[in-house]
Amino acid sequence: MLEHNETVARQLEHRTIREFTNDPVPKETLDTILAVANRTATSTGLQSYSIVRVTDGDVRGRIAEVCRQEYVSRFPELLIFIADVYRNRQIALEQGVDLGTSRDMDRFFQGFTDACLAAQNITVAIESMGMGAVFLGSILNDAAKIIEILRLPELTFPVLGVGFGVPAQNPQIKPRMDMSLKVFENAYGTFDSYTEAIADYDREMREYYDLRESGRRSDDFSKQVVKRLQSPIAGRYLMLNAVKAQGFDLGIEVLGRTDR
Amino acid sequence: MLEHNETVARQLEHRTIREFTNDPVPKETLDTILAVANRTATSTGLQSYSIVRVTDGDVRGRIAEVCRQEYVSRFPELLIFIADVYRNRQIALEQGVDLGTSRDMDRFFQGFTDACLAAQNITVAIESMGMGAVFLGSILNDAAKIIEILRLPELTFPVLGVGFGVPAQNPQIKPRMDMSLKVFENAYGTFDSYTEAIADYDREMREYYDLRESGRRSDDFSKQVVKRLQSPIAGRYLMLNAVKAQGFDLGIEVLGRTDR
Repeated sequence: MLEHNETVARQLEHRTIREFTNDPVPKETLDTILAVANRTATSTGLQSYSIVRVTDGDVRGRIAEVCRQEYVSRFPELLIFIADVYRNRQIALEQGVDLGTSRDMDRFFQGFTDACLAAQNITVAIESMGMGAVFLGSILNDAAKIIEILRLPELTFPVLGVGFGVPAQNPQIKPRMDMSLKVFENAYGTFDSYTEAIADYDREMREYYDLRESGRRSDDFSKQVVKRLQSPIAGRYLMLNAVKAQGFDLGIEVLGRTDR
Repeated sequence: MLEHNETVARQLEHRTIREFTNDPVPKETLDTILAVANRTATSTGLQSYSIVRVTDGDVRGRIAEVCRQEYVSRFPELLIFIADVYRNRQIALEQGVDLGTSRDMDRFFQGFTDACLAAQNITVAIESMGMGAVFLGSILNDAAKIIEILRLPELTFPVLGVGFGVPAQNPQIKPRMDMSLKVFENAYGTFDSYTEAIADYDREMREYYDLRESGRRSDDFSKQVVKRLQSPIAGRYLMLNAVKAQGFDLGIEVLGRTDR
């Protein structure tokens, strides 16, 4: 088996790119990238996702506000991946079939997963072309606002954004925790001391210069974890309310009954 | 930009492989694949996912039962991707920090997304090596059972399985709905008649031979959508209950209050 082929070599060099040159992404290139999205595996073949390409400056600006990342306005290309059960429900409705099952969380997670897989797949394609990309999980800082901005109909939900273009920065590869902490055999494994298990990684992170922090050295990973837990994005933990507002049936048992 | 490079050419030929030769995946190959997982983008750098490699025959058999897919027992390799907030919570706990925010759905979705991205990234690597792969969303047929089988601790959740090895089948490339139905600009777009919009695709699907259905021709896509909605997997719509049972705070407003 061809192990260290070109694809894998690129994957092993993945870095997030947040600043790009002004070069536009040619239409044929974009079309190829969208074709890669379309060929991505999709749960039970249902293709329960959609993509909104954001070109309008005003729409960009409003999304950048939700993301709290000013550079979102400046990406040469920005694609927002959407979990989409709306389309398939319409297809069923036009056949006279109106079933509550289209509102199941099962469908929601199918769509959410489809959207993630397609987003990652195009990111590999983008990087294979010598371009760079950044994921925007930050669109979920305010899912309801993104739904309003992109006029997403019921049974759709924003999942992830991908910004891309020609890199205008050359960041260091960001260290990762050793795979021995993440990969287990046949059952989940725990550690007596995580502090000990990540000591080397904490040290490595201190050596890493994060361009996001204007080139300052990074914190220990363990300190970053605490920082993140201490400063959650307000309201983001309520995101299931936005899912429900989009017409999904959360299927939660309340007082022993479900809300069906 | 190098558009139709080898990586993209492979991605455009993606097919799901469900039957494999008996060739084992060499250890170095597996290590390379796991290194690709480790390099995948991860939300705010937190690496909130883990992988359980399933080699034990008994564990395999029990997972195959949940998946209702006998061939799961026979994959040369099977990796289960897990959303994992447990590890980072432990890291915080060992620093004396015990915050409810580690239970937020925000963290859950971060981990879920991380797991999906890593799973798709290794799938591209696997295919670049001339091997084939299949995603198993079917582990979520009974999330609680998978949690039990893999002994997943609180604040972890199964997301997706990936089976892979050397292909022992050569399926036709499965047609996809045209991207014009899935890609919109600046706002979601709807169609007056979805039946009309997918007429060509319905026709294409009828020409496609699905190896899963022992080589019978496929149904129209629109008929497949209806069939899926009519026969949901029992209990799967209740999966948020399993998420809650794993210690996540769903953050749902009940009677105007949240369950925090």
